Amino acid sequence: MKVLGIDTSSLATSVAVIEDNKLICEYTINTKKTHSQKLMPMIENMLNISDLNINEIDLIAVCEGPGSFTGLRIAMATAKAIAHVNNLPIVGVNSVELLSGNMNLCDKKVCSILDAQRTQVYMGQYKFENNKLVELKGVDVVEIDELIEELKNTNEEWIIVGEAVYKYEDKLKDISNIHIPAPSHNVSRASSLCSIAIDKYNNNIDVYDCYSINPLYIRKSQAEVQYDEKMKRLNDGK
Amino acid sequence: MKVLGIDTSSLATSVAVIEDNKLICEYTINTKKTHSQKLMPMIENMLNISDLNINEIDLIAVCEGPGSFTGLRIAMATAKAIAHVNNLPIVGVNSVELLSGNMNLCDKKVCSILDAQRTQVYMGQYKFENNKLVELKGVDVVEIDELIEELKNTNEEWIIVGEAVYKYEDKLKDISNIHIPAPSHNVSRASSLCSIAIDKYNNNIDVYDCYSINPLYIRKSQAEVQYDEKMKRLNDGK
Repeated sequence: MKVLGIDTSSLATSVAVIEDNKLICEYTINTKKTHSQKLMPMIENMLNISDLNINEIDLIAVCEGPGSFTGLRIAMATAKAIAHVNNLPIVGVNSVELLSGNMNLCDKKVCSILDAQRTQVYMGQYKFENNKLVELKGVDVVEIDELIEELKNTNEEWIIVGEAVYKYEDKLKDISNIHIPAPSHNVSRASSLCSIAIDKYNNNIDVYDCYSINPLYIRKSQAEVQYDEKMKRLNDGK
Repeated sequence: MKVLGIDTSSLATSVAVIEDNKLICEYTINTKKTHSQKLMPMIENMLNISDLNINEIDLIAVCEGPGSFTGLRIAMATAKAIAHVNNLPIVGVNSVELLSGNMNLCDKKVCSILDAQRTQVYMGQYKFENNKLVELKGVDVVEIDELIEELKNTNEEWIIVGEAVYKYEDKLKDISNIHIPAPSHNVSRASSLCSIAIDKYNNNIDVYDCYSINPLYIRKSQAEVQYDEKMKRLNDGK
């Protein structure tokens, strides 16, 4: 079974193909250029050089969020389009679970973070048990200072993984029970996405079709918050 | 500092750029198509989409071997050419050290293996200590059965990483103290190469120029072995 993974939930655009238990190809660009410009050319180039045709893909894996609002829609729309044309199932993997997959087989607990703007992060906590990823705390949005305080007080060893570690490096670097991985491990990777998706597909978890899968928005966008506030003011003024 | 990493030591062609402590881009193709056809188009496409120019690169990281004889020469020749034109230093990282970098921050010991043909593997053993990679056994070529027996008898937890795990999967899968990582972690990655190279460069270890770096061949090629045997026969016949 060949799985095409697509992730544009954060700064990185990452695409990969895994066949059964083997990585065929992976392409990750972690710059500020927009996902919409990069995603399709990256998929095309990667499949071409790998001598693969999009019609050979059996399953689509997509990062459903949380993350950048526009970013999520770009991966989701692309995944839906390919799945629609070729009548393929889609497996959704959330962005913090995906990041924790980078720390495969680590004994330390893993806390994945993505920047949620202001002083907040999207967060999930995981550990590897018998070579399987186990969720300790599901995806949530929290204040970074509260999260650091919580992890400090656990008296356990933690790896904090994700692009947001760079934003909060000064807060994280001197805490003895918190470890930051190498740059190679600190970015969302579509290969981790594919690995997790294959496992989910085999256990019939989070398997959708192109109509039923949707982005995972943990909180409202700034535009929606402002709209709600405006409507409340208008209603209160009545 | 921007580091361009190039690895063609095994089946995978992998290239990446890391700037300081951040992954900018990575491209890995793990198919049977030849490295010589893939390598330059992959570097060109990756730099283009990342909006990077080859003249912005400050350091070249190359996997020096051991591995495929022809493969090593392709990465090495490309690294030397770019370093020569732009007068850049080159850091050499061996292929088993590179693979162990995939298991960043793991508490288990890591044994990296690459197929050395027949029933042998290129091998190195490592662990992570205070977030740094520490060598336990330097690169060597060993019989796979002897290696498995050795690891089984250590009574320690081991991760065996590398493409060769697929060749020897049947021998490895039922051994309780040996763990095989996810497909995302079982391939040589130029991002791990760059991470290790930055650390080496900062400590002035294995830093070369385009004239002084050479591939690391652990044993003679089959052609050389046959030539030596032929010469011996001729000399004995005298």
